Amino acid sequence: MSVTYVVNRRRIRIEWGDCDPVGIVLASRVFEYFDVGSWSLFEAVLGVAPRDLARTFDIMGIPLVDARARMVMPLRFGDSVEILSSVAAFRRSSFEVEHRLLVDAEIAIEGRETRVWAAADKDEPSRLTARAIPPNVIERFKAG
Amino acid sequence: MSVTYVVNRRRIRIEWGDCDPVGIVLASRVFEYFDVGSWSLFEAVLGVAPRDLARTFDIMGIPLVDARARMVMPLRFGDSVEILSSVAAFRRSSFEVEHRLLVDAEIAIEGRETRVWAAADKDEPSRLTARAIPPNVIERFKAG
Amino acid sequence: MSVTYVVNRRRIRIEWGDCDPVGIVLASRVFEYFDVGSWSLFEAVLGVAPRDLARTFDIMGIPLVDARARMVMPLRFGDSVEILSSVAAFRRSSFEVEHRLLVDAEIAIEGRETRVWAAADKDEPSRLTARAIPPNVIERFKAG
Amino acid sequence: MSVTYVVNRRRIRIEWGDCDPVGIVLASRVFEYFDVGSWSLFEAVLGVAPRDLARTFDIMGIPLVDARARMVMPLRFGDSVEILSSVAAFRRSSFEVEHRLLVDAEIAIEGRETRVWAAADKDEPSRLTARAIPPNVIERFKAG
Repeated sequence: MSVTYVVNRRRIRIEWGDCDPVGIVLASRVFEYFDVGSWSLFEAVLGVAPRDLARTFDIMGIPLVDARARMVMPLRFGDSVEILSSVAAFRRSSFEVEHRLLVDAEIAIEGRETRVWAAADKDEPSRLTARAIPPNVIERFKAG
Repeated sequence: MSVTYVVNRRRIRIEWGDCDPVGIVLASRVFEYFDVGSWSLFEAVLGVAPRDLARTFDIMGIPLVDARARMVMPLRFGDSVEILSSVAAFRRSSFEVEHRLLVDAEIAIEGRETRVWAAADKDEPSRLTARAIPPNVIERFKAG
Repeated sequence: MSVTYVVNRRRIRIEWGDCDPVGIVLASRVFEYFDVGSWSLFEAVLGVAPRDLARTFDIMGIPLVDARARMVMPLRFGDSVEILSSVAAFRRSSFEVEHRLLVDAEIAIEGRETRVWAAADKDEPSRLTARAIPPNVIERFKAG
Repeated sequence: MSVTYVVNRRRIRIEWGDCDPVGIVLASRVFEYFDVGSWSLFEAVLGVAPRDLARTFDIMGIPLVDARARMVMPLRFGDSVEILSSVAAFRRSSFEVEHRLLVDAEIAIEGRETRVWAAADKDEPSRLTARAIPPNVIERFKAG
């Protein structure tokens, strides 16, 4: 039986400083939008402000270990963009977040992040180490 | 018979403004490093300064249509990083650039960009349209 | 007789990628917020979408020639910030924009930009050259 | 009797992702270059790697409280820029750093940062509090 996860929507605007000399959004900014989408999804689903996430769940954060974007249509200065974000899969200590960036209901960019549920290492606190994602966290992301 | 392509090396340093509140390089900056690697590779191979590339080849540029990064080890403030970049494949009007980011000869991040050899559309000059990559451009990227 | 100018308000949120390893907003991002404030002010007052500004007024843009910021309180990840922007003075071909960034009605950052009303140079189109700001543009910025 | 301070030089290159749709360096990036200049100056003068600065001097960092830039000539993609940075004045717990960005020995941008020698507050460790700059630190910045 397949599971469906909550889709979160967040609207942003493409700013002057997001665009390159050809007038198209920089790839690097696209990954910032994905980041905004992930934080926004977590806030909506868990009801925890982004800056309280680490403390609330006794982790260091949810660092990215893989990220991918496919540009379908160029985003340009002034575009109003809707970011649709949802978890695509949970694994033991990592998860996939899927993002679609829409302009006027058409897909401009789509991509995916793999993030880790990470805490400080016991022996070396400056290092991050993967932790099992709590089942009640996963439960909250389920739709319906 | 397989083709091997020139590998270009460029050294950068991880700056304060590249790092997030956990002290790790932002994903968005990783894609800026890839961009630096691609421009540096093109300059080295074609002998054309980056800002003259478009004019020299009568194109608008080499926009990104797909990008992917895998973080193997976190990059941190002050790290001296070597970017190794090479074309992985040429297609008719697009190409793949492969990047590896090394710290002390160990892979920290690896990734790939798909870029298009793009000119202004004849009918609508503000739109980009794919062009065939000139054979003499491809020839220059071959190693040995 | 002193002139008062329209004050525009725009709300933003401090994102993860805006913050440095100490958890405070990067100075560079503060100047992006100022930029957002200026474009938003111009759009509200002139009724022209940012990307149409240049074409509408037959200029290249409104490039920055001086910028200053004073940090009163650190902005942190997740802060909801109101940007208040208004023209402080018009000169022949340049103008000052004043920005205040408020969190819960308290000033966190204040600053100022000097921008030029600039067109392409007739003899060398890649160079920008200052133009007199049209009186009807100035008129629109007056409050009350 | 006036004091002169060490001037540090660091060379950078203007990258694609640093430039706006008009092809000119973004103001926000200028303040990142200033930051690079400050860290580079501190490393050269104190002989401490940037990421060890806080720990070495038992502080949280040297946060910015005021920053200003004046654009004399536009910086463009591919420009090789020399950043000249020096302390302009030390006060009890803050200091001024002066930056000049040169292209082919001509000033393109000049500016100034005010930074604070800051430690964690004893009562509220997440807050920064100004500390007196150690005299031996100041001594090291004196030229000649």
